[in-house]
Amino acid sequence: MTEATSRDPNGTVPAPAVAIGDIVAAHARIAEAVTRTPLLRAFWAPGDLWLKAENLQPIGAFKLRGAANAIARLEPDVRARGVVTHSSGNHGQAVAWAARAAGIPAVIVMPQEAMAVKVEATKALGAEVVIVPNSHREVAAEAIQAQRRMTLVPPFDHPDVIAGQGTLAVEVLEDLDGIDTVLVPVGGGGLISGVGVAMASLSPRTRVVGVEPTLAADARQSLAAGRRIAWDARSTYRTIADGTRTPLLGEITFPIIQSTVDEIVTVDEDEIFAAVATLVRQAHLVVEPSGALSVAAYLAAPQKYGRTVAVLSGGNIDPSILTRALALTS
Amino acid sequence: MTEATSRDPNGTVPAPAVAIGDIVAAHARIAEAVTRTPLLRAFWAPGDLWLKAENLQPIGAFKLRGAANAIARLEPDVRARGVVTHSSGNHGQAVAWAARAAGIPAVIVMPQEAMAVKVEATKALGAEVVIVPNSHREVAAEAIQAQRRMTLVPPFDHPDVIAGQGTLAVEVLEDLDGIDTVLVPVGGGGLISGVGVAMASLSPRTRVVGVEPTLAADARQSLAAGRRIAWDARSTYRTIADGTRTPLLGEITFPIIQSTVDEIVTVDEDEIFAAVATLVRQAHLVVEPSGALSVAAYLAAPQKYGRTVAVLSGGNIDPSILTRALALTS
Repeated sequence: MTEATSRDPNGTVPAPAVAIGDIVAAHARIAEAVTRTPLLRAFWAPGDLWLKAENLQPIGAFKLRGAANAIARLEPDVRARGVVTHSSGNHGQAVAWAARAAGIPAVIVMPQEAMAVKVEATKALGAEVVIVPNSHREVAAEAIQAQRRMTLVPPFDHPDVIAGQGTLAVEVLEDLDGIDTVLVPVGGGGLISGVGVAMASLSPRTRVVGVEPTLAADARQSLAAGRRIAWDARSTYRTIADGTRTPLLGEITFPIIQSTVDEIVTVDEDEIFAAVATLVRQAHLVVEPSGALSVAAYLAAPQKYGRTVAVLSGGNIDPSILTRALALTS
Repeated sequence: MTEATSRDPNGTVPAPAVAIGDIVAAHARIAEAVTRTPLLRAFWAPGDLWLKAENLQPIGAFKLRGAANAIARLEPDVRARGVVTHSSGNHGQAVAWAARAAGIPAVIVMPQEAMAVKVEATKALGAEVVIVPNSHREVAAEAIQAQRRMTLVPPFDHPDVIAGQGTLAVEVLEDLDGIDTVLVPVGGGGLISGVGVAMASLSPRTRVVGVEPTLAADARQSLAAGRRIAWDARSTYRTIADGTRTPLLGEITFPIIQSTVDEIVTVDEDEIFAAVATLVRQAHLVVEPSGALSVAAYLAAPQKYGRTVAVLSGGNIDPSILTRALALTS
């Protein structure tokens, strides 16, 4: 990994923050720490659909890739002091898991509103959980970072995290030829940035298409406008796809998305619920709403995409929401 | 495949109906027709548990292996006339799928009580469905076999079917060393017979343990008695694990089980529901009650089994039963 960012200090052509070499190196670096998830043919779907089942990662989400790579990239003495992050969701568990695997301490800052089951799951992974009011999460994490000289592992806007997420695309390309389209859920953009860089280099014919809920379509709007546009939580918190409520793309992810993503499409809430239920009934996979966005987009227009890989980004769904999805579509 | 059965016409030492060579040959023969399912580490479980995810087969169950092998083994002119079977469950869909893949006709005899969704799913696979009263299923299938000169593919008690199911064990042994125990759901005994023959030859140190519902423990009782003992449907139909309601082990499977299976354990209904729910929450897999028997047995006594592979034999669960399992264990 180079330390280059998208902002070139000399003001000339910006260098990419993540290069294909970073992703290939990450792929080798984290091979032992992550599960090589299966790419499953969805015979039940029209056309030619394949599912990259990241819900089968140990913590149930792709986030483990980026966290494992970011931690493995630290200098040994820095790494030994531990890592900190703020997250009520999959990223927190990913950092806790990767830290435990690396034998280092981890502190996860979580909001008071976090579900008890998520707090307990994070503690069970050996992490120290610090509960603060939601608005204090970032400040609290930064304070711990400074006081304990720990390294902050951001959820998406970091080159090592992006390179880690991109390893998913390397596996996909090892498993399948002739991919026309890869459909990727978009939150902060870490996953699609990594996939975009990998595809641009290793399979330039493959179209990289992001998927957002209509209620949290800040990435689609930002790409159209040519600048990052934040969406208010009053809108984004209406979507069931909690992993995509991130209000704004990252400083690092946005230019990568601009240069490597072909299109961002949106899906409605009823399409998300239907995709969750279809994945249970037909694919026998438990996928969270954010993770099912890709399948929702495919099923809305299968003829559009050709041979398609839909990334199922995670499986951590509240059982009551799963029950609701099954009831809505029975 | 030799034509030997467990009954030696000369009355001397019975030759096994299925030899390891049959399974190894089947493994190569059906490689294109079935999915090489992942073996997933269950990090969330105590001890050292791995899951063989046969719920991720195209029709959602291991049955595809045996059906594909039985059809591939037919002489071309015999195969071209097509196949017939009677089944309201996974075996019917497996035969329909494998027949379509082989480009031959298939007739599936189903009882009037079969759920409409299963009838439609079987038709969608290109099979002809014949609906008859439940008690007429076998007679109807045999009549079609005679009239149309089709081949009957039995659900479990056939050497080619058993050899096909055994290919699952070959994959497991390719993926993992040092397996102390493999836990296998038992219905008619086709799956555990194939796994038993494979393990006896390729990994004799591995204990092969069958799992039945307490309400359908005919295999356990038969093994203890040294002869096949049938259980009445009034008992077996009380279990939620519909794939294990088979009243009696097969003539071919029983002696194989006697010689290759170390033990058969039983689990109660509440343990089955809990295992289904745990697999949703922790493994993000949709597994039918029969398919979750193996995990139910493991979780009842994890310290007993050492490094364990639990076969998740299928994923075709009624959504209402899945919802019930989640509600019971919330």
